[in-house]
Amino acid sequence: MPLSARSLRERFVLIRENKLFETFVIVVIVLSALVIGAKTYPFNPTVFQIFVILDWGITLFFLTEILIRMLAEPNLKAFFKKGWNLFDFLIVTASLIPVDESEMALLGRLLRIFRVLRLVSLIPELRVLMNAFMQAIPRMGYVSLLMFIIFYIYAAIGSIFFGKINPDLWGNIAISMLTLFRVATFEDWTDVMYETMAEYPLSWVFYLSFIFIVAFVFLNMMIGIVLETMQSEHEKLYRETGQGEAGEVHWIKQHTAEMERRLERMEQLLIRLGPQPDGQRKDDS
Amino acid sequence: MPLSARSLRERFVLIRENKLFETFVIVVIVLSALVIGAKTYPFNPTVFQIFVILDWGITLFFLTEILIRMLAEPNLKAFFKKGWNLFDFLIVTASLIPVDESEMALLGRLLRIFRVLRLVSLIPELRVLMNAFMQAIPRMGYVSLLMFIIFYIYAAIGSIFFGKINPDLWGNIAISMLTLFRVATFEDWTDVMYETMAEYPLSWVFYLSFIFIVAFVFLNMMIGIVLETMQSEHEKLYRETGQGEAGEVHWIKQHTAEMERRLERMEQLLIRLGPQPDGQRKDDS
Amino acid sequence: MPLSARSLRERFVLIRENKLFETFVIVVIVLSALVIGAKTYPFNPTVFQIFVILDWGITLFFLTEILIRMLAEPNLKAFFKKGWNLFDFLIVTASLIPVDESEMALLGRLLRIFRVLRLVSLIPELRVLMNAFMQAIPRMGYVSLLMFIIFYIYAAIGSIFFGKINPDLWGNIAISMLTLFRVATFEDWTDVMYETMAEYPLSWVFYLSFIFIVAFVFLNMMIGIVLETMQSEHEKLYRETGQGEAGEVHWIKQHTAEMERRLERMEQLLIRLGPQPDGQRKDDS
Amino acid sequence: MPLSARSLRERFVLIRENKLFETFVIVVIVLSALVIGAKTYPFNPTVFQIFVILDWGITLFFLTEILIRMLAEPNLKAFFKKGWNLFDFLIVTASLIPVDESEMALLGRLLRIFRVLRLVSLIPELRVLMNAFMQAIPRMGYVSLLMFIIFYIYAAIGSIFFGKINPDLWGNIAISMLTLFRVATFEDWTDVMYETMAEYPLSWVFYLSFIFIVAFVFLNMMIGIVLETMQSEHEKLYRETGQGEAGEVHWIKQHTAEMERRLERMEQLLIRLGPQPDGQRKDDS
Repeated sequence: MPLSARSLRERFVLIRENKLFETFVIVVIVLSALVIGAKTYPFNPTVFQIFVILDWGITLFFLTEILIRMLAEPNLKAFFKKGWNLFDFLIVTASLIPVDESEMALLGRLLRIFRVLRLVSLIPELRVLMNAFMQAIPRMGYVSLLMFIIFYIYAAIGSIFFGKINPDLWGNIAISMLTLFRVATFEDWTDVMYETMAEYPLSWVFYLSFIFIVAFVFLNMMIGIVLETMQSEHEKLYRETGQGEAGEVHWIKQHTAEMERRLERMEQLLIRLGPQPDGQRKDDS
Repeated sequence: MPLSARSLRERFVLIRENKLFETFVIVVIVLSALVIGAKTYPFNPTVFQIFVILDWGITLFFLTEILIRMLAEPNLKAFFKKGWNLFDFLIVTASLIPVDESEMALLGRLLRIFRVLRLVSLIPELRVLMNAFMQAIPRMGYVSLLMFIIFYIYAAIGSIFFGKINPDLWGNIAISMLTLFRVATFEDWTDVMYETMAEYPLSWVFYLSFIFIVAFVFLNMMIGIVLETMQSEHEKLYRETGQGEAGEVHWIKQHTAEMERRLERMEQLLIRLGPQPDGQRKDDS
Repeated sequence: MPLSARSLRERFVLIRENKLFETFVIVVIVLSALVIGAKTYPFNPTVFQIFVILDWGITLFFLTEILIRMLAEPNLKAFFKKGWNLFDFLIVTASLIPVDESEMALLGRLLRIFRVLRLVSLIPELRVLMNAFMQAIPRMGYVSLLMFIIFYIYAAIGSIFFGKINPDLWGNIAISMLTLFRVATFEDWTDVMYETMAEYPLSWVFYLSFIFIVAFVFLNMMIGIVLETMQSEHEKLYRETGQGEAGEVHWIKQHTAEMERRLERMEQLLIRLGPQPDGQRKDDS
Repeated sequence: MPLSARSLRERFVLIRENKLFETFVIVVIVLSALVIGAKTYPFNPTVFQIFVILDWGITLFFLTEILIRMLAEPNLKAFFKKGWNLFDFLIVTASLIPVDESEMALLGRLLRIFRVLRLVSLIPELRVLMNAFMQAIPRMGYVSLLMFIIFYIYAAIGSIFFGKINPDLWGNIAISMLTLFRVATFEDWTDVMYETMAEYPLSWVFYLSFIFIVAFVFLNMMIGIVLETMQSEHEKLYRETGQGEAGEVHWIKQHTAEMERRLERMEQLLIRLGPQPDGQRKDDS
């Protein structure tokens, strides 16, 4: 009796979901990382031959694994819908490209390195961390743009004034920006400054103002991220669990609103009760 | 039929508000930034001639643009009231100053660089960031003053004791302050210290105490900004949306006050109801 | 009359709990630390002899002290159950190992240094700090793993491309990781970069992207710890004291729930009261 | 008519409180700071003579000022009760000590520098900042002790192992601690590491573990200060204004408690009302 396409897919799903299979995939990724690392050490040709064989074995295993995951989905569209699947697919297919010639060997090795990133897509906790990083990127966009404008202006000024003093550091706007990044990391920035101060004694204003502004923008970015993260964490807690301070406040709000409606009803009842024993009320008012 | 002054102004407003016009202004600013950057590279005279023409074109465009924005306002006073308009006006007029002589050429190039800052005044998100920076400045004022006093005292001590050891680093109070700023950024500070420790073995106390104090003041400033930003963000959320924890607490407060008033009314009603079936109440009290 | 085992244990408990004894133990630990420090200075043999005797005295005292604490417990299992006791026991027994031969002398001195750590186990405030550190470790686990993966990938790329340029910095993946850690601390990182930029002019992309990613992951880790600490501090305050904002909100929640139940009862009473003066109610509904 | 002692004191109080007098004191302090700074530059003897006269003038003025403030108080005890008065008194009297001999001249100049600190005691905003710093000190005590223990242990290990490799960096425990502080500031730490790695290839473990531990303890300290500051700011807001979220929560708590008492009274009233029209109640239950 031949296997129907459907039962075959179910079988692939079973393999994919298998805890042992998942662990094995992680082991192979770690092995692949170790092979990459080991290759940077000098070994005699025999050992190297083993590495090459191991490499092909790993490549084949990854190919099999991704095929299983593809076949486990109802169609290819469903597979590629998940960003992490596309990520895995690109990494696996890229390392399939034959790179035997000496020229392309470097590219081949480079592509194999990115296999290590598959760890991130496999371990859920790392995937969560990565997603958190991705979410923080847009917020940093405009701050980065502002930072870039500051760097650009200072680099232009720097290359106009200091370009002739030391072309290696201030030759053109691109080199100047790299030099300014160096100043921003405090890496031998005084050497850069003392050199230009010999010609322009007031050039310390240039460096100090740059350091202050960059530190300030960076600080602001950091605080922005902290605030953003806090608020989103707060909100998450608030929605999901209903626990924590924010959740309790929300609970109190809802119940206060309910109590208010009940009190309104009760007051109506009391008012209706009130006038009946007449005579009493008129005396007061 | 001649255009009346009013309809002319409306036409300028239409141009100013035009989305396409705005985008074009940004494109011209970016182009102007690229020209500034390109000029720092060596080019043959023909290309340079193109840059000079481009430069004049950009200057004329900016002049036209600012005139449109000026004429779009009912009067000049309304135009200059907005800080960003004044900022743009100064940048544009400054680059109009003829700077053909070799001496002034440097200043001319410098003034043109600041045109890049117009990006900040045009993109609303960057304007918001800039305003946030401006607001943080006063708060830092007194901390900066304290920092300056600390630097001044240490610089005075440094130049008295180490002035003869290395005049390049401790020659006078200004140089000493620059050296201390270097120490504060950890830039080759041990070289500075080892030199003076050769004569004064206990001078490490000077450096370590300085590093600790400066780090501490800086930390305090940073925390101050974080707290300030948090509080203002909190308050903003609170007023504007009424959402979030702070907003909900405020809602609860108001409704609790209302409930209290209602309960008071209800209690009064109940007390009035109570004595009717007389005899009951007097027994208790 | 011989002492019973029980009264002997009680006597040991008394010694252990004695405030004077505790202070004396701290004094001996500080003395032991001073001896360790003093030994790093050159002294004449006579003084050194005193140090050796002092060392043995301290070792014997620590042995006695730990025996007292062991005998003060009902059994050994109870003693070793507390992590700090095991910690103390290991430090004391390790320094008992005879290390007279020149080869082992280094190890002996090393083991004696760790006696200073006993200060941490004795002073309650330091123990609290240490426990706080321990609790933060798991949270950092996955972030550290992610950091390690990033370092590994960059180190692999680095050793492939720059391995031949400077084997001292990029010879193999281990050396490359150390070099990258150096770059992450901004320690002379431009020297590393300029060297590789001579061959690969675009290698600045490698360094700048690495610095940005590492700084970003580190920032995220820091924020994570801050958030975690804040939340746990918040919760602690909340449970223990019932004071502070979180405690008050919790109090309000509980009392609101109680008020609701009371109001429900009251409404029932009112409804029951309502229909008595009949005719009134039927008219309305 | 001679002035009575009391009216004289009142006159001194008037001088002390005078806004103009206060401003003049600040001007003199700034002048005194400028003289200190100017003295670090080479001047011809005539100018120097002016500085000496100015110095004496300032000293006399400070003496007069402190006497006025002393006489403005009812007695000396009241004057010295305020910490800032004692601070000012010490600074002023210290600079009175005659230091004409060449040997003591250095000390004299040193003491005059501290006069600049009087700015801190005079400007209220700086005094607030200083008080905030003072309050943060105790909290840091135990963390600093832990930091010191870590430095001590690593310094002992360092001087035992690396003492012979480079006595200038690891000669004894004191020098080792200074070297470790240098490593903690990332100042040329790789030079220190590479030197010892030549003999002990695994010594990178020593440096990396040290950097991680110190960074971690420092981070913890920083977070501790942030949390502490936030909590105290929170509490201050809470007590003083009753505004803000914390204040509103407190308000809600108090009013909820009040509402509860009122509801209890109302329920009692209702229960008392209920049973009167008897027969009704028995039917229900």
